[in-house]
Amino acid sequence: MRRHSIAFEAAQGLGLVQRADAPRMTEAAAPLLQAIEILDQHGERRFIEIPAERPLTVFVDKRELVTLMTLGAAPEHLALGYLRNQRLVSDIGELAAVQVDWDTGSVAITSRSLANRGVTVWDDAERGDALAGRLGRRTVTTGCGQGTVFGDLMDEIERIALPAGARLSEEVLYTVMDRVRRHESIYKVAGAVHGCALCSNAGDSRGEILRFVEDVGRHNAVDAIAGWMWLESIGGADKIFYTTGRLTSEMVIKCAQMGIPFLLSRSGLTQMGYEIARRVGITMVGRCQGRHYLLFTGGERFVRQPVTALA
Amino acid sequence: MRRHSIAFEAAQGLGLVQRADAPRMTEAAAPLLQAIEILDQHGERRFIEIPAERPLTVFVDKRELVTLMTLGAAPEHLALGYLRNQRLVSDIGELAAVQVDWDTGSVAITSRSLANRGVTVWDDAERGDALAGRLGRRTVTTGCGQGTVFGDLMDEIERIALPAGARLSEEVLYTVMDRVRRHESIYKVAGAVHGCALCSNAGDSRGEILRFVEDVGRHNAVDAIAGWMWLESIGGADKIFYTTGRLTSEMVIKCAQMGIPFLLSRSGLTQMGYEIARRVGITMVGRCQGRHYLLFTGGERFVRQPVTALA
Repeated sequence: MRRHSIAFEAAQGLGLVQRADAPRMTEAAAPLLQAIEILDQHGERRFIEIPAERPLTVFVDKRELVTLMTLGAAPEHLALGYLRNQRLVSDIGELAAVQVDWDTGSVAITSRSLANRGVTVWDDAERGDALAGRLGRRTVTTGCGQGTVFGDLMDEIERIALPAGARLSEEVLYTVMDRVRRHESIYKVAGAVHGCALCSNAGDSRGEILRFVEDVGRHNAVDAIAGWMWLESIGGADKIFYTTGRLTSEMVIKCAQMGIPFLLSRSGLTQMGYEIARRVGITMVGRCQGRHYLLFTGGERFVRQPVTALA
Repeated sequence: MRRHSIAFEAAQGLGLVQRADAPRMTEAAAPLLQAIEILDQHGERRFIEIPAERPLTVFVDKRELVTLMTLGAAPEHLALGYLRNQRLVSDIGELAAVQVDWDTGSVAITSRSLANRGVTVWDDAERGDALAGRLGRRTVTTGCGQGTVFGDLMDEIERIALPAGARLSEEVLYTVMDRVRRHESIYKVAGAVHGCALCSNAGDSRGEILRFVEDVGRHNAVDAIAGWMWLESIGGADKIFYTTGRLTSEMVIKCAQMGIPFLLSRSGLTQMGYEIARRVGITMVGRCQGRHYLLFTGGERFVRQPVTALA
């Protein structure tokens, strides 16, 4: 079905060149929808489509890290983005392979240090490298309100400098909202997923969707986009991030980690999302629906007149 | 403000008696709302209220377990429910104290085995008891699509037997929907939170809300209700669980863990939520809004005529 490939659309016009040291990767897209029979309030049988949800256990060099519950649209990018956003791996060149196997519900990530050593079993003490140290520290890590590396991330957030000159015009904001609304999606068919879009804020492509990912967890969708950006060496400075999810602390932190100065949402925000956005200087616009929006933070970057007046 | 105490309303008519060996607990409610100034799409300044969000790091016998991002309405119950739903502690009698300190953003849970021993520092090997073993195993644990103890929980799910004779009438379903809709809530004021309600399905109180908790994470709200049920020795067999959140795998697993046969939601469901509900025999009704609903699973327990016809 065509809509199954939504998450895999090639980003048009980006002129992507795969880096020579990119990890070997599977492309293990899985079916994203299932039809089930239900009864409605009139007692009538109906078929509805619902989104898939499947466990994906992340192994790094054979060490079990976390189990993510995912739609399964972009499992390789999700695993990469998870590693990246949890700051477990800083350079994608450290990774030799990312291999998803749905039969076992796992993704095996192999580091070059392990691949080079040719060993298959070791303990962290014996290994003694930086990655092992970071893995050891992350026993209290993971996303979405239950488990965070909050302290470490806040330290990092303080060092992020978003581009001072970046501007978002109201016209581009409306373009993004229109494009997201018209975008083919699992949500329209089946609900029960969150979507994220990475959009351009540069040149003639301003407002265009470069990448659109949906997942059953709103953090997974963000992580999958972050993983793709990491893999393709795409910077965030001239981008806009849109999410259907709420602007909680972790959503704002992840946007800052990606270096994106503009964060839009169909939903509202929390106090910590607000405070972090102010501290890091993100321009955050919420409750985006139709021709309505609320400008929460970073008004100095937001221009209410058309973007053409700025060019 | 009155609405700040929503989560602390006494459960009316339950005749709760605190057990003699209940842990000592703080009652560290925190402010749940903040007013911020924003600009709307007309460029006009407005004040809106947004929900609080604060980190709460859970320590069990001085061992750091996880950091939960929470609204802060019911931190003690949240911590208890987290321990319970992650199956880290099976008997609440094992716990001597649950003490929240917002200055440090932490909740210290002390087990009786530690309290009795009078020690303050140890390592797991030295300690060597069952709790230490369970804590050691949970490095890949936590909720909301990123991190689960999925394998262990599925084993447990297979052993859960929900009451075969339990019935939910359409009339009681509508009563629950009406009461939840009319319930005072942070969501109505500020959005950006998920709510859960534990409702009665017994006697004259059928459809009444016994407990209502909101949180920035939908799993935290469920865990806070589970913690309260655990503390007060309240069984799930004659209850109904309502959530504003989606019916993903973990939501259904938690409902099953609480022994509740009926799970209602304003939202939709995922494939794994559907499959687990079918396997464990939960009656699941979603898309509950106005006079609309979809009966997803467990139709044999659902009665479309008024409950009076059953009595």
